[in-house]
Amino acid sequence: MNKNAFRQLSYGVYVVSTWDKGRATGCTANSVMQITSDPATIAVSINHDNYTNGCIQETGKFAISILGEHSDPGIIGTFGFRSGRDHSKFDGTEQLLKSFLPVVADACAYLVCEVVNRMETSTHTVFLGKVLDADMLKDDTPMTYAYYHNVIKGKSPKNAPTYIAE
Amino acid sequence: MNKNAFRQLSYGVYVVSTWDKGRATGCTANSVMQITSDPATIAVSINHDNYTNGCIQETGKFAISILGEHSDPGIIGTFGFRSGRDHSKFDGTEQLLKSFLPVVADACAYLVCEVVNRMETSTHTVFLGKVLDADMLKDDTPMTYAYYHNVIKGKSPKNAPTYIAE
Repeated sequence: MNKNAFRQLSYGVYVVSTWDKGRATGCTANSVMQITSDPATIAVSINHDNYTNGCIQETGKFAISILGEHSDPGIIGTFGFRSGRDHSKFDGTEQLLKSFLPVVADACAYLVCEVVNRMETSTHTVFLGKVLDADMLKDDTPMTYAYYHNVIKGKSPKNAPTYIAE
Repeated sequence: MNKNAFRQLSYGVYVVSTWDKGRATGCTANSVMQITSDPATIAVSINHDNYTNGCIQETGKFAISILGEHSDPGIIGTFGFRSGRDHSKFDGTEQLLKSFLPVVADACAYLVCEVVNRMETSTHTVFLGKVLDADMLKDDTPMTYAYYHNVIKGKSPKNAPTYIAE
């Protein structure tokens, strides 16, 4: 099996966020996709080891901030390479409140979802979320994972589905 | 809710294929993502109305051909805007046999998967597939859905999760 083939799949770059007992938390993710059109539902894959996973299970809600090419790339590191267990990741990241959920302000769009189903795998939970609210935030080109790799020269954190040990 | 926000999610362009009682069939899809890294699993969302859906349920296997920017855009129409119910879509599309599954030859990479789980929604099945085989086919930039829309000027077929009535 040639794992380089996996790298040909296309993704965006997102922050998936929710509440941790009144404190905003979240993590960087690229495995997000729309599943149904009407009602609109979105699937997102989150590693069991990500602190955000348990928080979503508890609140039953999550938001997706869609990062753009002009979003501060520091956001990806803040939300991707540190744990919400010991860091308040939204400290120092401008936050909006949308339908009672925390969203990254420096993003091109957001979606707020309510968990309606989930599928467990060996390492990740796939949450299916019904979209409650969605809107544009700024006029920007959505950042693709390829752009993040090739232009920003970013890497995959160890909990990402797309992680390949070097 | 502003549905334009949904259009900011990033995808690739794929042909999801399998067997229909010895005849190769498949459909165009954009909702494909990797879920776990080891073992590698892939999720794909297929509309209940797509003939390919029932064929995957029957065979328990599917292949994903990852289209590139230089893949013949006619493939997208052949597999996206006609039904495998009344058309042999692989007639006239060069086909490879990989781990006993039919794959589109004019693609940049392929994955062959065995269904290990699935999640049902109102209109789509999300199949979770364990990757059995994967390889590169040609050196090309994977086609993103944005490229398909903006450069090839393509539209969403009615069964796509991303379909928005005009």
